[in-house]
Amino acid sequence: MIEKISHIGIAVKDLDAAIEFYKTMGLEVEATEEVPSQKVKVAFIPVGDVRIELLAATSEDSAIAKLNEKRGEGIQHLALKVDNLKQELSETAEKGIRLIDKVPRPGAHGADIAFLHPKSTFGVLLELCQEKKNHS
Amino acid sequence: MIEKISHIGIAVKDLDAAIEFYKTMGLEVEATEEVPSQKVKVAFIPVGDVRIELLAATSEDSAIAKLNEKRGEGIQHLALKVDNLKQELSETAEKGIRLIDKVPRPGAHGADIAFLHPKSTFGVLLELCQEKKNHS
Repeated sequence: MIEKISHIGIAVKDLDAAIEFYKTMGLEVEATEEVPSQKVKVAFIPVGDVRIELLAATSEDSAIAKLNEKRGEGIQHLALKVDNLKQELSETAEKGIRLIDKVPRPGAHGADIAFLHPKSTFGVLLELCQEKKNHS
Repeated sequence: MIEKISHIGIAVKDLDAAIEFYKTMGLEVEATEEVPSQKVKVAFIPVGDVRIELLAATSEDSAIAKLNEKRGEGIQHLALKVDNLKQELSETAEKGIRLIDKVPRPGAHGADIAFLHPKSTFGVLLELCQEKKNHS
């Protein structure tokens, strides 16, 4: 079951400059984290009970760097919080929706995540995200 | 003050087909509305206390139709709920952030809205949105 929006992923080139912009808007970074498997550094900005996640490449061959190259900075993905990711993935596949990740993989903040294929989701890179317990 | 994320605007070509996809994911449309001034039809899908807003053009010269043409379907904007839009706009301009709308204009769902310029916001089309009272 989809419970809420977990976060909105935004690709940026200069993480510190982007953090500074959101600070100017009155929004504060809660934490930053490097995710070596994705070659990104992430800054988490809580807004109500949803987070903005700023994503900056730590290597030129990371997916975010390629995206910045191709489409420029901007909103990259929308993550929906689910209670049971494995079950959700199996149900989603059964409904004929294409998956990028057939099994959960580790994301930032200790969450398990999986992406659906934009060809099945009307152009949106949708992430399903089972957050670590005790993290809202 | 930014209180929460109000909604995420997603540009789609075929509104009914996109609604059907979100239904498949277990998410239901709460209402639809035509906004003649923007030449769009909007479907509101609540997810937790945030809404996904699917936006489809009602005319080939609407901004959404042009965007679909240029970038394809996908996430178009991120709307932040503010308590006092006029004050927020004046403070935002004072901080040197470029505005698309210097004064509030009417949006969907009876809200007053204004867009910030993506050149000032690291590529994100950010909307500030003062929702109609009694609508969360």
